[in-house]
Amino acid sequence: MAHSDGLTLESIRNSLIRQEDTIIFSLIERAKYPIIPQLYDSRCSVLPGISGSLLENIVRETEAIQAKYGRYQFPEEHAFFPDNLPDSLVPPNSHPQVLHPAAASININKTIWDMYINKLLPLIASKGDYENHTCVAASDLECLQALSRRIHYGKFVAEVKFKDASEEYSPAIQAKDRDALMKLLTFESVEEMVKKRVEKKAKVFGQEVNLTNDAGNGKCKIDPSVLPCLYGEWVMPLTKHVEVEYLLRRLD
Amino acid sequence: MAHSDGLTLESIRNSLIRQEDTIIFSLIERAKYPIIPQLYDSRCSVLPGISGSLLENIVRETEAIQAKYGRYQFPEEHAFFPDNLPDSLVPPNSHPQVLHPAAASININKTIWDMYINKLLPLIASKGDYENHTCVAASDLECLQALSRRIHYGKFVAEVKFKDASEEYSPAIQAKDRDALMKLLTFESVEEMVKKRVEKKAKVFGQEVNLTNDAGNGKCKIDPSVLPCLYGEWVMPLTKHVEVEYLLRRLD
Repeated sequence: MAHSDGLTLESIRNSLIRQEDTIIFSLIERAKYPIIPQLYDSRCSVLPGISGSLLENIVRETEAIQAKYGRYQFPEEHAFFPDNLPDSLVPPNSHPQVLHPAAASININKTIWDMYINKLLPLIASKGDYENHTCVAASDLECLQALSRRIHYGKFVAEVKFKDASEEYSPAIQAKDRDALMKLLTFESVEEMVKKRVEKKAKVFGQEVNLTNDAGNGKCKIDPSVLPCLYGEWVMPLTKHVEVEYLLRRLD
Repeated sequence: MAHSDGLTLESIRNSLIRQEDTIIFSLIERAKYPIIPQLYDSRCSVLPGISGSLLENIVRETEAIQAKYGRYQFPEEHAFFPDNLPDSLVPPNSHPQVLHPAAASININKTIWDMYINKLLPLIASKGDYENHTCVAASDLECLQALSRRIHYGKFVAEVKFKDASEEYSPAIQAKDRDALMKLLTFESVEEMVKKRVEKKAKVFGQEVNLTNDAGNGKCKIDPSVLPCLYGEWVMPLTKHVEVEYLLRRLD
């Protein structure tokens, strides 16, 4: 069903499907590099006057620039270090707000950061060194932002699902019944299909293509089975977590 | 032939081939967005106290952070705005210098910037608006950095070719004969092969993959014929330009 704001479940699904490609490209690119302890562990940092890990510092400072130029004025973008961001120079956008204002209080990037560094990275890279740490950090930021956008898109998913069936969701929201909401939001057959699709995409996009091999036969730059694991264990559960958090505030 | 510094034509070729994937991924991602006049044209800027285009400002400030954390200490990386970059906090790397010191004076990023904005972008996107300009700028920066790295890799190509056949190159270098150097560096059959390979890669990586279509049959997110054009018209000629500039200084 189309709403006055133009948001439909179909348009959201198309965006989520396109975002799969972005996530997979970013992970294939990240898999070029090893896991560099000096980048992730503040105890390994060798830089004077820096607290926190090198990645934290690079992400925080890059986010500050992006905030200044308006990145976080849009409800699909969430900073990993939202405190003390500079004000935006860009005038506030005048488009009608699609989401309930309480959406702004939901940011699970700490969980996403932890999942990415401690669970996902070890599945696509091994410990090692690559001299230019800044290039690796830029690649990490690409992955983190792609995952964060995908997972926080749950706010839009929840809004459309709520508008399409508010009488179904309202009792569970009023009862603050997370389990009931989670059940309403879960479609196992759809989740299985998503897991199969992202695995197929990783096989296609990750292959080494040359002029003599057939498409589909190239060696893969990333283990395709990482993708259904990423989606099944983290991306889809965290998206639903965002959806539940949003719905719990939807009638405030 | 392997040199004492571990640099071989084979290892450089492998890097160039892998960089094709990075460039194609970045262009497919950029093709999601339109060409936004306010991002590229300083006359369209609406931000107070900002001179230059929005993209110039975002790139300059992002490069300043990356410089601080050491990105430009490595000879494969070149800033688009190299003036007034902050000093690096990272201690200088202690690896043996592979390139002749004169390499540092070669930076053709102004040409690459101009080619990217005025020639390449119109081949992959149309004028339009997308609200979050900062996201588009980040995508532009990915493309620009990938192209810049690829083209300036010509310094390494030239160094290895020179070491492998210095008696062949030295007379043309001493005579400052650019045409003779360009001839020595040009292998048309290799260039044709590269153009075919990048077109094939764009077909494979740009396709829309779903569970019902066969790999190779999906609609493409980017016109694959843009890639042989990009490589034939700009990437390979500019790489050879870098090679010639490097060789002209190689005996200084």
